[in-house]
Amino acid sequence: MSVKTIEWRADSVRMIDQRLLPAREVIRVCRDYRAVADAIRTMVIRGAPAIGVAAAMGVALGLRGFSGARARTRFEVVARTLKATRPTAVNLAWAVDRMGRVLGENLALDASALYRRLRDEALAIYNEDLAANRALGRHGAALLRDDPLTVLTHCNAGALATAGYGTALGVVRAARESGRQVSVIADETRPFLQGSRLTAWELRKDKIPVTVIADNMAASVLRAGGVSCVIVGTDRTAANGDVANKIGTYPLAVMARRHGVPFYVAAPLSSIDLGCRSGDAIPIEERSGLELTEFAGRQVAPRGVKTFNPAFDVTPAELVTAIITERGVARPPYTESLAALKRGDSTD
Amino acid sequence: MSVKTIEWRADSVRMIDQRLLPAREVIRVCRDYRAVADAIRTMVIRGAPAIGVAAAMGVALGLRGFSGARARTRFEVVARTLKATRPTAVNLAWAVDRMGRVLGENLALDASALYRRLRDEALAIYNEDLAANRALGRHGAALLRDDPLTVLTHCNAGALATAGYGTALGVVRAARESGRQVSVIADETRPFLQGSRLTAWELRKDKIPVTVIADNMAASVLRAGGVSCVIVGTDRTAANGDVANKIGTYPLAVMARRHGVPFYVAAPLSSIDLGCRSGDAIPIEERSGLELTEFAGRQVAPRGVKTFNPAFDVTPAELVTAIITERGVARPPYTESLAALKRGDSTD
Repeated sequence: MSVKTIEWRADSVRMIDQRLLPAREVIRVCRDYRAVADAIRTMVIRGAPAIGVAAAMGVALGLRGFSGARARTRFEVVARTLKATRPTAVNLAWAVDRMGRVLGENLALDASALYRRLRDEALAIYNEDLAANRALGRHGAALLRDDPLTVLTHCNAGALATAGYGTALGVVRAARESGRQVSVIADETRPFLQGSRLTAWELRKDKIPVTVIADNMAASVLRAGGVSCVIVGTDRTAANGDVANKIGTYPLAVMARRHGVPFYVAAPLSSIDLGCRSGDAIPIEERSGLELTEFAGRQVAPRGVKTFNPAFDVTPAELVTAIITERGVARPPYTESLAALKRGDSTD
Repeated sequence: MSVKTIEWRADSVRMIDQRLLPAREVIRVCRDYRAVADAIRTMVIRGAPAIGVAAAMGVALGLRGFSGARARTRFEVVARTLKATRPTAVNLAWAVDRMGRVLGENLALDASALYRRLRDEALAIYNEDLAANRALGRHGAALLRDDPLTVLTHCNAGALATAGYGTALGVVRAARESGRQVSVIADETRPFLQGSRLTAWELRKDKIPVTVIADNMAASVLRAGGVSCVIVGTDRTAANGDVANKIGTYPLAVMARRHGVPFYVAAPLSSIDLGCRSGDAIPIEERSGLELTEFAGRQVAPRGVKTFNPAFDVTPAELVTAIITERGVARPPYTESLAALKRGDSTD
């Protein structure tokens, strides 16, 4: 993998600062859990699986030097801080809770052994994410038969959004590895520009042809024909198949349906939340209006203007052609198919 | 009017440089037709009616000092240059052709009298546009009954897009003048940000409440409810009611329909092109990819990345609830209602 999104090294978490890409490749080193929380909140690192991995590593850093009852109290503080950074992606809470369970099972260990155990669990989450992406990619590549294959995507569900390889872009990579001619059309994805800054950057590193468009151009591209399918990631998918993902995903799904283009969601099982019955139950983060009114320190809206900046929207299950996971492909009705995949039934 | 979009003064055309708003209010002075053409091409001035006025003034400047057969030859050059600046908005060609007809009728005049005549015609186009906007605004305000009235708009169809007052925002202004409580939700409108930079700026000058969102957030806003209607301008509307307007208008119309929100087009008669049978016949300008890959001189996509940057899209007539003109409101079927309005039948 040419992109190192996040890495554990010498009691620290190293992340590429995604706010500075593609102009500069700067590594940010986090030596305590507060630095990790800050990096997630300010989007040094983003993408549901990646912030899950980061949070797990943050828990390990946060528990360093603690054991027994003090470790339990400390975990409450660390977990609350990390979970509060971003509410929509379920992977974050999922990873923190998993670390909490491991902590609970190992309270008898001394501080140094407990720290090593937690570090190993965080690394396991990292490695499992990588493996899940590769498996998800293979399932997706088997699903998409077109050759040449032209994929339209929104935001960045790539190596930079995960431990590596990517979910939606993992499908793209797997299709390419299977020998097909693959190209990507990337929505720039306002306001953070994950598409033009991150998706375009990592695809070019892998020499996969990519064309950048503004989000509002996707409808014209879909109408013109030639797009094989839309593939996006997800921050949280509800039990009924409603998909929370980066703002702009919902209208993209509507336009795909209107123009007869399949709309796929690449969803690692860690992003599927059977505890949410439908999309209505998914909390939607609202971020600072400065993301809309300023750009690189330059004012692009009148000072003091009111803004509304929801970071995600919910695509209703009825618009989703299929949901691709590392354990196979879920088809409607999702209430059954997603539950079966979460239980571990293979669809292969 | 607190905003002076364009002004004829002392043998020059003065325009506010819309590329620099809202940060700086700089007046650009054009003393010859080439400077006017350059200003239109580089979007110092934009908006279909405004570039029509600018082109008419450009013709007057271009013909200064010419008469007789030399004036006719000169006009060919000036007209070709001005028409080549931007292909989609029909007002530009319409205004240039109208200046050409006046020229043809006045070839017997000496150079100085011919110049005065052309200048007066350009000023007439300017004044007619202002009057048309006010009349269109009144028709629109009568159509929209909600109070409070919440209007979602895309791009800038305001004072800055016209001689003044605006088309879509003219309706907003007229509704406010009629005593209603009016507020606007403005799509920022990538890539040029006409919404956050221009619409928000001119509405705040008039103390009309405005909320800026990214284009891809409009779907969530429409789904949430509370939007009375969508109103947009148009660069060219075909005989059948297909509407070419700023890129992103088409998906906005689809989302408005999906959520039961009326979708109105504010179209001065000069923007209705009965010579175009349908939207398929409207040329869609593609602009430089730098609008997507750079922002305020900062790189926001990898160097050399491929882009696609269509400046407009076409909204099919079936998605348009009504078309508001200065002579009344057209309803489907548009082939009949638009032709009647163009003939001069009033719908009042």
